[in-house]
Amino acid sequence: MRLLRVGPVGAERPALLDDQDRLRDLSGITSDIDGAFLSSGGPERARAALAHGALPLLDPDGLRIGAPVARPGKVVCIGLNYRDHAEETGAAIPPRPVVFMKDPGTVVGPHDRVLIPRNSVKTDWEVELAVVIGRRARYLDSPAAALDTIAGYAVSNDVSEREFQLEYSGQWDLGKSCETFNPLGPWLVTPDQADDPQQLGLRLSVNGVQRQDGNTKNMVFEVAHLIWYLSQYLVLEPGDVVNTGTPAGVALGLPGNPYLRSGDVVELSIDGLGTQRQTFEPA
Amino acid sequence: MRLLRVGPVGAERPALLDDQDRLRDLSGITSDIDGAFLSSGGPERARAALAHGALPLLDPDGLRIGAPVARPGKVVCIGLNYRDHAEETGAAIPPRPVVFMKDPGTVVGPHDRVLIPRNSVKTDWEVELAVVIGRRARYLDSPAAALDTIAGYAVSNDVSEREFQLEYSGQWDLGKSCETFNPLGPWLVTPDQADDPQQLGLRLSVNGVQRQDGNTKNMVFEVAHLIWYLSQYLVLEPGDVVNTGTPAGVALGLPGNPYLRSGDVVELSIDGLGTQRQTFEPA
Repeated sequence: MRLLRVGPVGAERPALLDDQDRLRDLSGITSDIDGAFLSSGGPERARAALAHGALPLLDPDGLRIGAPVARPGKVVCIGLNYRDHAEETGAAIPPRPVVFMKDPGTVVGPHDRVLIPRNSVKTDWEVELAVVIGRRARYLDSPAAALDTIAGYAVSNDVSEREFQLEYSGQWDLGKSCETFNPLGPWLVTPDQADDPQQLGLRLSVNGVQRQDGNTKNMVFEVAHLIWYLSQYLVLEPGDVVNTGTPAGVALGLPGNPYLRSGDVVELSIDGLGTQRQTFEPA
Repeated sequence: MRLLRVGPVGAERPALLDDQDRLRDLSGITSDIDGAFLSSGGPERARAALAHGALPLLDPDGLRIGAPVARPGKVVCIGLNYRDHAEETGAAIPPRPVVFMKDPGTVVGPHDRVLIPRNSVKTDWEVELAVVIGRRARYLDSPAAALDTIAGYAVSNDVSEREFQLEYSGQWDLGKSCETFNPLGPWLVTPDQADDPQQLGLRLSVNGVQRQDGNTKNMVFEVAHLIWYLSQYLVLEPGDVVNTGTPAGVALGLPGNPYLRSGDVVELSIDGLGTQRQTFEPA
């Protein structure tokens, strides 16, 4: 199932895309797609309503697409989780997952404009597989048990300002948390409809030039391991988002460091999870 | 004014302490003490209602005290912001604020039990001055302007697991974000009633032995500078919390590293902002 949220910022309506790619209204089932919906059997109710023909069609014309989950309680990120990306940034392959956080207020829709911070000269892109949590994850017994806590997958752009991230202190969060720095969506794809999360191609282009072309099979730590690992140290709640790292091809690692400038257009996609397109503008 | 939230976890009632230290119910003014209340003139409405004798008394007997703000959108932390603490941990005085984040789900009441994570042998304490944001802070013009965005101050214990924080990767958030790791309160003290935020004594004891005894005058970066600085990179929203760093005397810096064990009792206080007391228990 492909869940999404459509409408103006702050007034999104829950919806889904059916098998014929038609947009259907979920307002009769839930007020929003959030942790409460995901953890209370909401997706199953939506599926049943769809099967019974109980979901009205929505006209997609001119409708903005928001992030596919309401504002997450937290956004946890994994750094250096693809061997090729660790190499391009000059970092060693980490022996354990590198865990940091983004301000959850940075989450925006997949096609919303992204703001280049004032005084930024090193704004960079990162296509990532996002995991959305559907059930509380605390001291999980095994990576296998972790899969049961996942509500679904989505495309995420872990936008990063490299000067703020890497040159101001040893802690990365500042350069990861600038306004609008986490486009998410277009859809939340439930596990039953997603392909194997470790066999997904990820691609990103800037102004039509392909920059990233990776595959989740090259993760250092797989999705199930990451969720299990995190649950040994913190509590993941329904609606939380985990960005699982980016493959090679970011501006930081490319010859000449072609960081983003106002007017640049970034397009990114993951197999089966849809496509994002953002124009970058000054803050 | 001293604002607080009393009652069971998840069902706290808004209240205030009047000049005679009597507990008064704010339920008639607001459903909660949160970003919406703080940014919409809520404290002024509460003050007016108190002056008009419109706030009923509450019986404090047996009432739990919760965190003085509802779950924050984010918790931003400043590292190494006292010269003596930077020295005790062997770190240099940072040229810019060191910014990291805690999971905002770690915020608990000031006297709630704190959980020592499973497999933890390095759980540590940090008394800190917390700043609660009352008005959106984005690209503020000056540190002076930053003071206008502050809703108030509170005592915060930035509980930290040093192995998870410092030995697993270069990023600190994992060891800062364990369940229950941010006791906050007992009160949110509004700026008009607080003393100069750069002249506050902070103290912390473990099992009656004093471990920290600092003063906010020894901050490397003052409160107004910190809020202004953060606003150049991220957006602080009403209800967000900023933990402004800890003075010397944490277990990490003490001879023999006396980390916390099950049954240990930690008490901490800041001039004019009240006292916290937590018992540490296994997760």
